[in-house]
Amino acid sequence: MITTYDVFVPMLMGGGASLRTGLKVRELGCQKVLVVYDQGIKEVGIAGKIEENIRNAGVETVCFEDVVPDPPDKMIEEAAEIAKREAIDGIVAVGGGSAMDSAKGINVLMNNPPPIVSYFGIQKNLKPGVPMIFIPTTSGTGSEVTNMAVVSATDLGKKDSVVSPVCLATLAIIDPELTLELPPKLTAITGIDALAHAVESLTGGHANPMSDALAREAIRSIHHWLPIAVENGGNYQAREALMMASTHAGMAFTNALVHLGHCIGHALGASFHIPHGTACAATLPEVIEYAAKTESMKVRMICECLQKVIPEQATTDEIGRIGRDALRSFIKSVGIPNLKQMGLTLEEAMSVAPRVTKDEGMALAPYRITPGKVAEMIASAYDA
Amino acid sequence: MITTYDVFVPMLMGGGASLRTGLKVRELGCQKVLVVYDQGIKEVGIAGKIEENIRNAGVETVCFEDVVPDPPDKMIEEAAEIAKREAIDGIVAVGGGSAMDSAKGINVLMNNPPPIVSYFGIQKNLKPGVPMIFIPTTSGTGSEVTNMAVVSATDLGKKDSVVSPVCLATLAIIDPELTLELPPKLTAITGIDALAHAVESLTGGHANPMSDALAREAIRSIHHWLPIAVENGGNYQAREALMMASTHAGMAFTNALVHLGHCIGHALGASFHIPHGTACAATLPEVIEYAAKTESMKVRMICECLQKVIPEQATTDEIGRIGRDALRSFIKSVGIPNLKQMGLTLEEAMSVAPRVTKDEGMALAPYRITPGKVAEMIASAYDA
Ligand SMILES: NC(=O)c1ccc[n+]([C@@H]2O[C@H](COP(=O)([O-])OP(=O)(O)OC[C@H]3O[C@@H](n4cnc5c(N)ncnc54)[C@H](O)[C@@H]3O)[C@@H](O)[C@H]2O)c1
Ligand SMILES: NC(=O)c1ccc[n+]([C@@H]2O[C@H](COP(=O)([O-])OP(=O)(O)OC[C@H]3O[C@@H](n4cnc5c(N)ncnc54)[C@H](O)[C@@H]3O)[C@@H](O)[C@H]2O)c1
Ligand SMILES: [Fe+2]
Ligand SMILES: [Fe+2]
Repeated sequence: MITTYDVFVPMLMGGGASLRTGLKVRELGCQKVLVVYDQGIKEVGIAGKIEENIRNAGVETVCFEDVVPDPPDKMIEEAAEIAKREAIDGIVAVGGGSAMDSAKGINVLMNNPPPIVSYFGIQKNLKPGVPMIFIPTTSGTGSEVTNMAVVSATDLGKKDSVVSPVCLATLAIIDPELTLELPPKLTAITGIDALAHAVESLTGGHANPMSDALAREAIRSIHHWLPIAVENGGNYQAREALMMASTHAGMAFTNALVHLGHCIGHALGASFHIPHGTACAATLPEVIEYAAKTESMKVRMICECLQKVIPEQATTDEIGRIGRDALRSFIKSVGIPNLKQMGLTLEEAMSVAPRVTKDEGMALAPYRITPGKVAEMIASAYDA
Repeated sequence: MITTYDVFVPMLMGGGASLRTGLKVRELGCQKVLVVYDQGIKEVGIAGKIEENIRNAGVETVCFEDVVPDPPDKMIEEAAEIAKREAIDGIVAVGGGSAMDSAKGINVLMNNPPPIVSYFGIQKNLKPGVPMIFIPTTSGTGSEVTNMAVVSATDLGKKDSVVSPVCLATLAIIDPELTLELPPKLTAITGIDALAHAVESLTGGHANPMSDALAREAIRSIHHWLPIAVENGGNYQAREALMMASTHAGMAFTNALVHLGHCIGHALGASFHIPHGTACAATLPEVIEYAAKTESMKVRMICECLQKVIPEQATTDEIGRIGRDALRSFIKSVGIPNLKQMGLTLEEAMSVAPRVTKDEGMALAPYRITPGKVAEMIASAYDA
């Protein structure tokens, strides 16, 4: 199989790296930047520090501080209006996937007419936007290195992605210190999102040796450090390792793409407003079991990274079960609730199945399945 | 510590990927390309196939088939003369590090006056050259993804590097099938070169989390697959794994750089015409022992990747010794000779020490040492 690897974002990384934001914005030649974040980032004081740092470098700032989780199309369109009215020439996003994806959506709309939902899917001919700097504050989405913006289409009742070079950061500033105060629950949820990226990249139809290498490293690292960071958020070494793991998982999946687990996650997220990481974690163990039928070598790799030994002679079904159980017990160990604990009824949870198999993201799943089979997987995960 | 990661080369990879060379050359808009290789690549029939493939795509070719190992400055200057006279608008290099580095040197001279040695060191303001496609045929140097050209300066009696964006390939085409007939000895020598890149990147002064992740993956893979490929060159899975490992190690060291082991290797190579991988392998175990004094965590990582257990309580000296012995026994196991077996006298081998400590590459070594200490390391390695 011949594959390509060509989505790269230059990175500046290390403790304190975000203090160079102003300097970097200037180096990019920007004079007035839109700083994009949400209220949570403002409250912990991160947004203010970055803004000040940019202004101290002699660059003007305009703030958009109303990002909401799972950014809706309308919100992105409003922010883009502000950006155009203010004639900004650069964007700095500070926050989790929601802030970064909002910035991406805004950038798409800088020189392409709304609505943003008209750009869902792979876009090769969008007009370029402005330079963007992304500063992640969760170790989760990897959005700082991916070329896709996940947007909630309010009227369509679904989440989908715009995939385009216009969604790529010009520079990612990766500063693990920004995550030192991320609360345990958010640490776990976002960490498991990164794990899902790595696991799905490895087993998907676009996996390649490079994405595999990065994904394996990410799984090893999350397996070791996530419980430590959930227990003790102030452990810098753990925060650094998780930040790199989420970035590596992002690099893996922006080239190899995710599949069934995220399709189910997006459907659950769009219907029941479950946090992205939790929604993707819900059936991840079942997804691995399903993938093992054709990708047993990859499931072996995943188990090895989770320090789970699989007997040489194991059948693909056994490999699938061992992989499922290993993932399940790890996900539980960091306190992620199952669908029942999230408060969903079994019927509600299963109801998303028909939407899942229609999701474009299924294109890269190891093999196609029926809505019935998806419903079965959801049922198996429901109170596991 | 804050570091950056920004040297990236797009890749097309997989068995048979080199059959897309003509297509890719056209996509880059080239009409007449210089194809650079050596007699060995010609004899095994690889060069002819690639050339034909390019011509079949309707692109003219000019061949430079006289690359010699450890490419000398004069040869590169001659080739650049031909390239300019023929007004080529692209370069395709097919071969090991020698062919790719020659191509890089030629590209530097396309729009910058000779001699090539005047560009040794980090060059930020060279005039750009032409698009380049690199097709590695050894799993060793990683030159397809690095921004440096290693050149032998005949008059100066040394090897040094030109480091510049002009040395970066526009595209790397990574086709493991091209290595299926690489003889066992060359397989071992070039594989150990890749191992040295990974080991030195991990322990050097510019190591960063990203280069560390790639380097660890490379070591794991080389440890597992190199003995298999040396034993049975036709094992495709091994060839594929080694090709990715050398590329990953190249990505690691083009960002993190190598140090003492390569300084010693280059000095030995320039004086005694020992193959690059063998020369770098000679003292690699001692280099790890030396690095352990300040980088014991990294040496622990290396040992883990070599499946060597280090007791929790080990002192840095013990860690160094265990690392040294683990590397030594692996290097021996694939048939790499020591300095004595290469036919050098102890005095000859030790004589390069003063040149080593003056090498610019020492800038990123874990700490500075005296020529006396280097000589001691060479003596320890001599018949080990
Ligand atoms: N573009 C991509 O490649 C990609 C990949 C995966 C997920 N996503 C999307 O990203 C979104 C999820 O992003 P997320 O998981 O990072 O969460 P988020 O951005 O929605 O943030 C969640 C909450 O955490 C808070 N927070 C963030 N960093 C903090 C910090 N350092 N300290 C304290 N609080 C902090 C925020 O204020 C917010 O309230 C979803 O919309 C998902 O679909 C995108
Ligand atoms: N630029 C960099 O980043 C970098 C890094 C490390 C080393 N180097 C340099 O690269 C050079 C060494 O390169 P190398 O180790 O790849 O060896 P090489 O290019 O010198 O080739 C060695 C021999 O192998 C033969 N060969 C190559 N591929 C073959 C194949 N598939 N089948 C049969 N024969 C084949 C060649 O014809 C040649 O005779 C040195 O000059 C070294 O300093 C450069
Ligand atoms: Fe995700
Ligand atoms: Fe080398």
